[in-house]
Amino acid sequence: MTKENPTSLIVIFGATGDLAKRKLYPSLYRLYKNGSISKNFAVVGVARRPLTNEDFRANVAKSVNGAANGNADVEEFSSHFYYQPFDVTSSDSYQQLKDLSSSLDQEYQTNGNRMFYLAMAPEFFGTIASNLKAEGLTDTAGWKRLVIEKPFGHSLPTAKELNEEIREAFHESEIYRIDHYLGKEMVQNIEVIRFANALFEPLWNNRYISNIQITSSEVLGVEDRGRYYENSGALRDMVQNHMLQMVALLAMEPPIKLNPEEIRSEKVKVLRALRQIDQSEVDQYFVRGQYSAGIIGEETSLGYREENSVDPASNTETYVAGKLVIDNFRWAGVPIYIRTGKRMSSKSTKVVVQFKDIPMNLYYNRGEKVDPNLLVIHIQPDEGITLHLNAKKSGKDITTTPIKLDYSNNCIDGINTPEAYERLIFDAMRGDMTNFTHWDEVALSWSFIDQVSKAWESTTAEDFPNYEVGSVGPKKADELLKRDGFHWWEV
Amino acid sequence: MTKENPTSLIVIFGATGDLAKRKLYPSLYRLYKNGSISKNFAVVGVARRPLTNEDFRANVAKSVNGAANGNADVEEFSSHFYYQPFDVTSSDSYQQLKDLSSSLDQEYQTNGNRMFYLAMAPEFFGTIASNLKAEGLTDTAGWKRLVIEKPFGHSLPTAKELNEEIREAFHESEIYRIDHYLGKEMVQNIEVIRFANALFEPLWNNRYISNIQITSSEVLGVEDRGRYYENSGALRDMVQNHMLQMVALLAMEPPIKLNPEEIRSEKVKVLRALRQIDQSEVDQYFVRGQYSAGIIGEETSLGYREENSVDPASNTETYVAGKLVIDNFRWAGVPIYIRTGKRMSSKSTKVVVQFKDIPMNLYYNRGEKVDPNLLVIHIQPDEGITLHLNAKKSGKDITTTPIKLDYSNNCIDGINTPEAYERLIFDAMRGDMTNFTHWDEVALSWSFIDQVSKAWESTTAEDFPNYEVGSVGPKKADELLKRDGFHWWEV
Repeated sequence: MTKENPTSLIVIFGATGDLAKRKLYPSLYRLYKNGSISKNFAVVGVARRPLTNEDFRANVAKSVNGAANGNADVEEFSSHFYYQPFDVTSSDSYQQLKDLSSSLDQEYQTNGNRMFYLAMAPEFFGTIASNLKAEGLTDTAGWKRLVIEKPFGHSLPTAKELNEEIREAFHESEIYRIDHYLGKEMVQNIEVIRFANALFEPLWNNRYISNIQITSSEVLGVEDRGRYYENSGALRDMVQNHMLQMVALLAMEPPIKLNPEEIRSEKVKVLRALRQIDQSEVDQYFVRGQYSAGIIGEETSLGYREENSVDPASNTETYVAGKLVIDNFRWAGVPIYIRTGKRMSSKSTKVVVQFKDIPMNLYYNRGEKVDPNLLVIHIQPDEGITLHLNAKKSGKDITTTPIKLDYSNNCIDGINTPEAYERLIFDAMRGDMTNFTHWDEVALSWSFIDQVSKAWESTTAEDFPNYEVGSVGPKKADELLKRDGFHWWEV
Repeated sequence: MTKENPTSLIVIFGATGDLAKRKLYPSLYRLYKNGSISKNFAVVGVARRPLTNEDFRANVAKSVNGAANGNADVEEFSSHFYYQPFDVTSSDSYQQLKDLSSSLDQEYQTNGNRMFYLAMAPEFFGTIASNLKAEGLTDTAGWKRLVIEKPFGHSLPTAKELNEEIREAFHESEIYRIDHYLGKEMVQNIEVIRFANALFEPLWNNRYISNIQITSSEVLGVEDRGRYYENSGALRDMVQNHMLQMVALLAMEPPIKLNPEEIRSEKVKVLRALRQIDQSEVDQYFVRGQYSAGIIGEETSLGYREENSVDPASNTETYVAGKLVIDNFRWAGVPIYIRTGKRMSSKSTKVVVQFKDIPMNLYYNRGEKVDPNLLVIHIQPDEGITLHLNAKKSGKDITTTPIKLDYSNNCIDGINTPEAYERLIFDAMRGDMTNFTHWDEVALSWSFIDQVSKAWESTTAEDFPNYEVGSVGPKKADELLKRDGFHWWEV
């Protein structure tokens, strides 16, 4: 891997979709603009809609305009783009695509490298993969890779089914399952913070850490994704993938090397050590929530059940809080709490590592409670690290006061921080699988999550809706920590 | 102790001196102004010069004007001040002072509490102490305390002699030996940083710390203190007291309680564990320096030997670097490097704790050196804490970059941070000895330092002067660390 300036033909399925426009084209443009990819690349966009190359290029140009400085290079950039109206079930479509691909391979000297990017509804992933093989598109002189957007299945059995389908056409080492959280600067930073600092690793265990809290809250609701969301819920949409991936990165043992295989192997071990929850115990470990109507600012905001394409008696959770237990030597006794929800008070993803209290509070007889030390990793929208420590309170007496040591990535790099998709597309093009999820991880995540979703699907959430828009979630989520003597840190 | 609003009569010997004007009066004014001391106080200034109360009060008012907002309260404040021309060897002077004191005790209802503050040349400390007793001034209904400015002796034998003299009149628990570094906000913070943070104490030993560096550099030269300095040098002026006190605070075991006795007992243990250096080994552990003429900015600046009242062939060191070794379980193998000098490139006092390298550099095969973690405690003029860590370098590759997490005390508290003297005077008035040096500490410090000064006084420093004004000191100081594989952190 780490071939710089990789060359490739990129076939994007779902080329007229939202993801392609909002993320993929701008990311490709930035890679092009900063010289990460060579000029030997071409993009074929396919989708149902009939469009000409010119229409398509105009759309691409429009979607990258935010990132563009001059029109000249946008024009050159979009000249690499081709469009083909496509029916994913029609052999003709694939044959046509095959011919176009071959000629573009030649024209752009891509060495026959082909990336198939599935930026579309998952129900066709299997069909597309098998047709790509059947129609000979995967039979190429260079490498072939399949990039798959989430969600990867809906449960362990459905994920297995999907995986088997695509594995008929692509080897595991050719499948790049995107979890865009793994492309985020500060998620990637978790590993560096842990393994490049002598200060943290000795403390990174159950002797010094009391608990870890991972929060990913959104202000937005389901918007126009009601139909998808009804079928998914926060558990599948956020916990199965993003949250469990962050847990794995935080909890894994130091890998022997920082290569994709070793890192994955350690992440898999964390997921294997995750205590499986029996359906009957779910209430002890998980809390579900659904937002109700309320007022944000001056406007009344809909409850989840009033949203478009949502069942007025929906049982779907828009919020999940959970207590995860990792049964291994390092983490025994250290709960990892996660929570994620829509329509919360703020948009924020962060990790709070709470260290144990000092063994003896020397300041206690002065009537002072000393706050525990916290390491906060701000993932988004802020990017940075905050250490919450205690220092002497200014003044003539020796008393303590909490202080914060800050490092903000925003200040330093600002707009230069590459976007998650920019990194991930580049990684996929150069064959670095580190930040993609392996099937083993997907399977273990689903096997954990399935117990929870089964429990929830088999019972009606009597208290739904149980949190108001603009709040921090249901009360029960506080009780979850309170039982262990902890509380969520709103820092 | 911790009696709030302490009442006292304060007798200041050396009332027309620099220290009194620059530090004591302004500090007393701030204590008065912020209500720390009650109105039941009076100050008697004594010195050789004939002055009236009015002259004296005018001087006091002038010296506090920087701190004063309105003249009304300065006037009220200085009305507490009285002056008496004084001959420290004359019985009459003491009798007169006794009468004045008695009447002020009455007038200001000080409960007979008397603080004798010796802000003057040390040669009269013994004389004054014994006369205070002989003439009955220490025979008072309240407490009596002696506050002594540095230096306390010139060597262990002279310090012992001085101590014996003052101990005839005052009990150890009545003697407040000032080391004004102990009054500094961030020196007092060392204890809190260590004992109120679960993050640091587990790492605070030879398993995780590689070395500690304490720097106290001044831009100024000896100014008009050439005569004193010729006799003292940096070793006695800075190392014996301030530097060793900081070493003790950094290295001590957690005390059972944060009271003066327990803290002192732990500090004493550090000084006892300090490896004594034989005169013949001094060159392996210590480097002396003396500044030469040079250009600072646009102006030529004198070398030490050209300064007023300095011997043109002076052997006196204006710079000291040293390697201290603490032979105990916690610190075996962890050198503590100190350095202090005049006419350096910057005015700065700080502690750098360098942590050991990570056990294995996972980033090394990517051609990267990972910097060690550093905890920097900024003592003056900046007050704050900086943690030097490593994080992911922004971009598409996982490489590391050093980052800094900052906490600045200046930003938060600004001008509200009390000055060292304000704290120390207040502590002496309320009887808190925590931040004063006990005789045991003084004796141990001298016994360590004496070996070095004997070695230096018995040999001519052939290479003097060996560093230019505005530099970071002599080259040999770099070699001192280089031998151990370290270097000074200019952070």
